[in-house]
Amino acid sequence: MGEQTPGRRARLRAQTTAEIQAIALRHMAEGGPDAISLRAIAREMDMSGSAIYSYFATRDALIARLINDVYTSLMDEVEIARDALPPDDIAGRILALGQAVRRWSVANPERFRLIYDHPAPGHHAPGDGSTFDAAKRACLALTELVAAAWPHAEPVQPVGDHQWSDFAPDLVTAVRDAFPELPPAGVALAMRVWGRMHGLVALEVHGHLGLLTNDPAELYRVELLDLIRSLGLGQDIDRPGISKSASRTPPH
Amino acid sequence: MGEQTPGRRARLRAQTTAEIQAIALRHMAEGGPDAISLRAIAREMDMSGSAIYSYFATRDALIARLINDVYTSLMDEVEIARDALPPDDIAGRILALGQAVRRWSVANPERFRLIYDHPAPGHHAPGDGSTFDAAKRACLALTELVAAAWPHAEPVQPVGDHQWSDFAPDLVTAVRDAFPELPPAGVALAMRVWGRMHGLVALEVHGHLGLLTNDPAELYRVELLDLIRSLGLGQDIDRPGISKSASRTPPH
Repeated sequence: MGEQTPGRRARLRAQTTAEIQAIALRHMAEGGPDAISLRAIAREMDMSGSAIYSYFATRDALIARLINDVYTSLMDEVEIARDALPPDDIAGRILALGQAVRRWSVANPERFRLIYDHPAPGHHAPGDGSTFDAAKRACLALTELVAAAWPHAEPVQPVGDHQWSDFAPDLVTAVRDAFPELPPAGVALAMRVWGRMHGLVALEVHGHLGLLTNDPAELYRVELLDLIRSLGLGQDIDRPGISKSASRTPPH
Repeated sequence: MGEQTPGRRARLRAQTTAEIQAIALRHMAEGGPDAISLRAIAREMDMSGSAIYSYFATRDALIARLINDVYTSLMDEVEIARDALPPDDIAGRILALGQAVRRWSVANPERFRLIYDHPAPGHHAPGDGSTFDAAKRACLALTELVAAAWPHAEPVQPVGDHQWSDFAPDLVTAVRDAFPELPPAGVALAMRVWGRMHGLVALEVHGHLGLLTNDPAELYRVELLDLIRSLGLGQDIDRPGISKSASRTPPH
């Protein structure tokens, strides 16, 4: 190692870190998040136990890093789908974001489990805030859409009893900076939209929906249309392109 | 054992079965569903491995039985909450059922994980249909509410593209027997209501919501009000008793 330049050493370290994460994700795909073990990864890489601990001090640290990276790749994909539509097409952007959430989740069930279920008994998120940052990013991406829809949504949505003090201070600061017009009820609505997109997808990924219906995609699409309508954007949802198959006979 | 009457033998067997299940649930509460192991339970009960296998042939069989029992206790609780309100108070019954789902889930996070997450890597539901029966019961409980709301919901809900052939034949038979007026879109709506109740609760039980808000109960209550409104039952949701605190000043 004495022969290597600092730049090369850093590059090798980054490569090894990436390899550890890739093996962890593969073990997870084979045996679920519980199959992630620093010892097993070290064995596979012909590393000693002590060598791998210089990359990730604990299994929790490795899992936290995986969660953060997986969440980032989900949000990258989801935001690209949303931003493929112009900012004034609010209904279209909500539909695109929601469909991207489902597409990614169904294609990556183990990654979905890693970030949304308990990753493993005994795993505790580290105090570095990475889990919070990931949740905050998901919330802010939806808050952007809700802020755009708010003038339509406010007159039709239930008022509720929401105060700024109900929300994490760090989130409140980020929201008030980005969307100064949005009241606490708007942030609450963004979280409810998150929950609404999450529900059917979680049931599908965990195999519950498949027992009952063979068309979860259409179920979810109609749920998104109803969500869009619930934001006071009903006039947009029947336009061409959003309907699944305009020529097919309605069921009744 | 030769001294025992058949009745007494059956009673002892039922007791042992119940004890195995109780220990499995305790192990799950301590270490998650993955901590369930027939061998560990046998050890704790001073039974031999072969003796416990005469009660549950496989870990899958034990888990399937637990899922069924836990699901049954959830649905019992939820249906009691719903039926505390008169049949014509559709909005009140939906709110009561939804609140009962959240109350049970937050109070029983490990049981929630058992029935809604993957119980464990490698667990495969047995082919006896118990998992399907549980999912079907949840779906039918909501279908009853949706059928009652349907005359209000149909004019305002997106139509969607749903056929009877989209759904499990066994479910279709049960629904058409119980609610002959309900079209396929009504069954789809019941599943969407299930997803909508599931989403925020799943995020809360898995610790995601708590990072962002300290009032998940109010978030969920407003989500249920919006759900009720989306079923065309808006006129009911502002009546006294449903509001969280009528005397508190609205947030804006």
